[in-house]
Amino acid sequence: MPGAGVAAKSYKIYTRGKYNGMSDFVLKLKPAEPQGPDILAAERARSQVNVPQLAHHLLQRNGFLDRQKKVLAVLKKNPLFSKKANLNLSRPDRYHVGLARAKEVRRIVRRERWNHDDYMMAYYLLDEVSPYLLSDSMFTTSIQQQCNQEQKAQWLKEVENWEITGCYAQTELGHGSNVRRIECQASWNTDTKDFTIHSPSLTASKWWIGSLGRSANHAVVVAQLLIPDSEGKLVSYGPHQFMVQIRDLKTHQPLEGVVIGDIGPKYGYASMDNGYMLFNQFRVPRTALLARYSSVDENGKYTRSSNPATVYGSLTYARAIIINQSTLALARAVTVAVRYTLIRTQFSDRDSGSETAPELSVLDYSTVQIRVLPLLATTYALHYVAEAMNDMYQETSMRIEEDGDFSQLAEMHAVSSGLKSLSTTLAADGIETCRRALGGHGFGGGSGLIPLVANFLNKPTVEGDNWMITQQTASYFIKRMQRCVEHPDLKPVDDVDFTVLRFLKTRDQETPAFDPGRAEDLLAAFQYRSCFLAYRAYQFRIVQKASWNDILIDLHHLSNAHCESLLVKYFHEALQRADPPLDPPTLATMHQLFKLFALFTFQNASADFMATGILAPAQLDALAREIQTTMQNIRVDAARLLDAWSIPDYVLDSSLGRFDGDVYPTLFKVAHEENPLNKVTFNSDYRSEEIIKGEGEEQARRRIQALVQGTSGREWGADISSPLKASL
Amino acid sequence: MPGAGVAAKSYKIYTRGKYNGMSDFVLKLKPAEPQGPDILAAERARSQVNVPQLAHHLLQRNGFLDRQKKVLAVLKKNPLFSKKANLNLSRPDRYHVGLARAKEVRRIVRRERWNHDDYMMAYYLLDEVSPYLLSDSMFTTSIQQQCNQEQKAQWLKEVENWEITGCYAQTELGHGSNVRRIECQASWNTDTKDFTIHSPSLTASKWWIGSLGRSANHAVVVAQLLIPDSEGKLVSYGPHQFMVQIRDLKTHQPLEGVVIGDIGPKYGYASMDNGYMLFNQFRVPRTALLARYSSVDENGKYTRSSNPATVYGSLTYARAIIINQSTLALARAVTVAVRYTLIRTQFSDRDSGSETAPELSVLDYSTVQIRVLPLLATTYALHYVAEAMNDMYQETSMRIEEDGDFSQLAEMHAVSSGLKSLSTTLAADGIETCRRALGGHGFGGGSGLIPLVANFLNKPTVEGDNWMITQQTASYFIKRMQRCVEHPDLKPVDDVDFTVLRFLKTRDQETPAFDPGRAEDLLAAFQYRSCFLAYRAYQFRIVQKASWNDILIDLHHLSNAHCESLLVKYFHEALQRADPPLDPPTLATMHQLFKLFALFTFQNASADFMATGILAPAQLDALAREIQTTMQNIRVDAARLLDAWSIPDYVLDSSLGRFDGDVYPTLFKVAHEENPLNKVTFNSDYRSEEIIKGEGEEQARRRIQALVQGTSGREWGADISSPLKASL
Repeated sequence: MPGAGVAAKSYKIYTRGKYNGMSDFVLKLKPAEPQGPDILAAERARSQVNVPQLAHHLLQRNGFLDRQKKVLAVLKKNPLFSKKANLNLSRPDRYHVGLARAKEVRRIVRRERWNHDDYMMAYYLLDEVSPYLLSDSMFTTSIQQQCNQEQKAQWLKEVENWEITGCYAQTELGHGSNVRRIECQASWNTDTKDFTIHSPSLTASKWWIGSLGRSANHAVVVAQLLIPDSEGKLVSYGPHQFMVQIRDLKTHQPLEGVVIGDIGPKYGYASMDNGYMLFNQFRVPRTALLARYSSVDENGKYTRSSNPATVYGSLTYARAIIINQSTLALARAVTVAVRYTLIRTQFSDRDSGSETAPELSVLDYSTVQIRVLPLLATTYALHYVAEAMNDMYQETSMRIEEDGDFSQLAEMHAVSSGLKSLSTTLAADGIETCRRALGGHGFGGGSGLIPLVANFLNKPTVEGDNWMITQQTASYFIKRMQRCVEHPDLKPVDDVDFTVLRFLKTRDQETPAFDPGRAEDLLAAFQYRSCFLAYRAYQFRIVQKASWNDILIDLHHLSNAHCESLLVKYFHEALQRADPPLDPPTLATMHQLFKLFALFTFQNASADFMATGILAPAQLDALAREIQTTMQNIRVDAARLLDAWSIPDYVLDSSLGRFDGDVYPTLFKVAHEENPLNKVTFNSDYRSEEIIKGEGEEQARRRIQALVQGTSGREWGADISSPLKASL
Repeated sequence: MPGAGVAAKSYKIYTRGKYNGMSDFVLKLKPAEPQGPDILAAERARSQVNVPQLAHHLLQRNGFLDRQKKVLAVLKKNPLFSKKANLNLSRPDRYHVGLARAKEVRRIVRRERWNHDDYMMAYYLLDEVSPYLLSDSMFTTSIQQQCNQEQKAQWLKEVENWEITGCYAQTELGHGSNVRRIECQASWNTDTKDFTIHSPSLTASKWWIGSLGRSANHAVVVAQLLIPDSEGKLVSYGPHQFMVQIRDLKTHQPLEGVVIGDIGPKYGYASMDNGYMLFNQFRVPRTALLARYSSVDENGKYTRSSNPATVYGSLTYARAIIINQSTLALARAVTVAVRYTLIRTQFSDRDSGSETAPELSVLDYSTVQIRVLPLLATTYALHYVAEAMNDMYQETSMRIEEDGDFSQLAEMHAVSSGLKSLSTTLAADGIETCRRALGGHGFGGGSGLIPLVANFLNKPTVEGDNWMITQQTASYFIKRMQRCVEHPDLKPVDDVDFTVLRFLKTRDQETPAFDPGRAEDLLAAFQYRSCFLAYRAYQFRIVQKASWNDILIDLHHLSNAHCESLLVKYFHEALQRADPPLDPPTLATMHQLFKLFALFTFQNASADFMATGILAPAQLDALAREIQTTMQNIRVDAARLLDAWSIPDYVLDSSLGRFDGDVYPTLFKVAHEENPLNKVTFNSDYRSEEIIKGEGEEQARRRIQALVQGTSGREWGADISSPLKASL
């Protein structure tokens, strides 16, 4: 009887017979007020930022917005591209599905006559790495750039017609960045006039090779070219590229003498079959050597033509793309963070004096603003520097092609290294900062950040490790510094000379004035700091002959400092130009964004700026207040500033970050209606080995054992109409 | 014909008939020299750190090492606890397997008569969150601490005998930290003398509740207690705990009026069924209210007895455990990073002047050292502060129980908040830093860091968000500061008073001397900085009446600064005591470790130290050099310093971090022999919809569609002997 005391376990009285399929009272429930959509609508209404104009300003290049619209419309209506099951699929299943989707995309490309940019847009929107990625990129590029005319004639059409699937096999188990030391060998056979490709050790195994593990039937293999000298002793000519068929075109089995496989699960890239490959005395013809710049004739004579520095050009281009990806990746995380922290309320203002005062939007707390809003500004800073890199690439290419002028190449290469490092670090760290700003829901799948993080976290490592390639930037800068020190009357050929010479002239007398409210002072301060650090590094290395390893940390720091000054500079310049143009209110907000980025970056480097004498310790407080004021100015426009990035809900795939703000109903719907685990009733009594209610202990034991031992048929596609399902 | 020119597609000549099951030449291959095991053996040989002694020094508390050995031996021989398939299982399968393992652990506990600590050790070693976790922890604790005697008599035995499975249902979709505003209601029914539990909105849904989604049949539900006043108007008495049966004990279906489910995939915690739950006018008896401190009698009269502050005590204890978890989590990542970066070589020394000079261990680069070695030192710093927290908890509890002396409670609570925040941030960020230091292989499953990261990333949020709870530390410190300012002649009752009063007396005259080589100077500098920041915060808030929200960032900074000074202090004190004792060479290395931690932390706060006047800008370089020298001193002992943490290979589950250093053969073996994807041959031609070679287009379409739509039978346990498998 209710209320009759505890002795009778009265709480069980309320067991009301049978479960009724779970009553649907939840379907009528709404979130407590205020509703997310109303909050976002109000936020958007009170901002004057012109979203369509700003979106065009940011993304007009190459028709990005129209292309996004066009491709998205096609993908969205195809159920194969639904993302709803992704987080519930095993990694092997992700490859199965990924391959099916990649095939479908290719069929659509053919049917809709999409161009390469449309194709790449589909990858971006799908947010799933295609098993064809390396076939479509590095493999194709190698053939285009490294083949002679005959080779191109032979292979390029097949590749472009997608008749063969390839990959680019350079990295090995034991060697990544240091390509010169890769172990795989291609030895010239004088008798048979062909090459033997061979893996002399386990660490010579190709490793991480995208599209290789399960998909590719061809590979461009990078191997040490070895040719016997007159006494028959093999001499190394360094790494070269070879076109190799690796799987039978009919059976798709590896050819004899080749061992291939997928390297297994990773942080992300679930749908990509990064692979390994070893060769055992595998013969390829003489013509397998990609021969545009190097070749071996039938007598085993090696010829290398001058390899123009265009390689650096395409590296720069690849890095500009990575910076671009960093921008959109970070923008995606900030979009989720801003929208959700506007909608999420928690605690009243402590100074309100009332426990029942309305709770504040989480974004109204300065401790949330300081994490999220500088990152919002960072998305813009990254964007403008990527644009500048792109322009620089175009201009440098033009000069090389039209005038044979290679003078800008070294700087472009140096700058692209440091910027790749800084941008991907800012974005990778920034995404995690956004995730934590989401509070508890940031740990859930509803954040939409799981695939973003998983796929982005290799960026600080690929195309040059972020802590390694900064040496190139610093080394270049030290050389420029040395030249200026040794030739103080040099006629400046560019900005770097100009800045460095001015620094050298004034450094003993004065440091720049600094008022955190003045953009010019900020720009000058960042430039001065770069020069200060470059001069110090120059002294260590050139004057005091410090060992390179002893100053590596300083070099990394110098590179970052220089690149921060570039981010500030290009952001500022972009606003001066504002091309395409921006409304006055929009432009005014952008100036606030610039200020926030510059001040926040400046504050993080306070120790440097105090060391240079630019910043007085007494100014620290004022700097912090200025940052808070600037954040409050931006706060009102935050929602619209992210709308301008135009990241579709389909890409965000986030209950928290939806454009319409309908956060809680979506979180609930996804859990309640789309979670396969909720379709199963479990036996949670530890005294029974049964796991699914009704399957019995014997069946459970067999099933679990198969899962644990990895021998379950499920990984390679069990029948969907299993007898067990019917029994549930 | 080989070498006959490109026109004939001669590279196809080398297709040698049928694949022969992939030749096994790889089995004979070894990595290039030097071998990993030799490298680690040499590293260990040249260090004088006494590993067994240091391990005992660190982990003697409560017989940790013996317990680890005992429990590990049992787990390792049981095939159910093999981790090899984990990364290849879908999230729903991870729950199936997790439940099976958790049941088996319970059966072992019974059979082997393990105690609670042994049981917890099994969780730690398995490194998989048990679906019973919340039943074993918060649910049980609630009953022990919040029930009156009658309730305990009724429920505790059932719970401790594992006859029922429970959870602790506090957090809601719309409310986490702010418990006072949770929406779930428990209204007193005057007529029936019982309560109605009800979810008035969607955001009132319980959410994130561990063990609820699929496992629990009972819950301690936190709900607003509402009792009608004399006019029948419901009056809220705030959140209270209620014992509620939520599922039928026989069918395991939710009771009528209750909706329950699993919230879906998350970053980590794959084997845990975090759940949601809503109530529709669900009746529970009067005695459901856990009544040790609050009760409602049959006339609806509410009584609250003085709730002693032991709640804060157990919160502190929970946080000491989290700091401890942070230590071991970080130690695990650093173990992997140090062992692998010792074995991995890349590039020769740039100053060697030779391209063929042997490549350096990656850990010999200062840019790798600066990321990994300070984190190695941090594991020790975190350890000693966790020990200190534990001692503080014991002492405070004793004082309360024996003398009714609550005087230490406020400080302990304040300190535990700030330390939880700082420790989990250091560990979470540190793990990712270690991962990136691994280079490319850090993105692969062989790192062993995937489950570590996934399961640790909620720590900055749970038990109080890291950016929120620092307010408590700062607020407490400001109060202490205010008291000292207002009573300069106060007799110091503790360290805080003493330090603050000394700061107030001297701050206008002098700043402490600072020599980075002197431990005392470092300690004094950190204390001075805390006081400096606390005084500034006091001025903002108390003197200038700044709004709380405006100074939140300063408060967070103050808390971190204070906790950094505690980390430095407790590390230093522990070495003075060295209890259990340490050999002179081991102790000498520990002093270097302390120095590295203190200097590195100091350097990161250079701006603060310059602002206080302790650090002159001219000292920055010397500081950096001192850090590099200290790292070189530690470098030689790095391998042994991590061996002392005694993290078994079974926990590391890392090809890169294995104790024996056999990195590359293990990476290869796992990929080549244990990857289920490699057992399937795919059709990678986009012109066909077939995915698995031989399955045909129709079957592939059906299969992929089911996967994409989440309707595949596989999620709930398809038959392992599916017809498809046989056909392969």
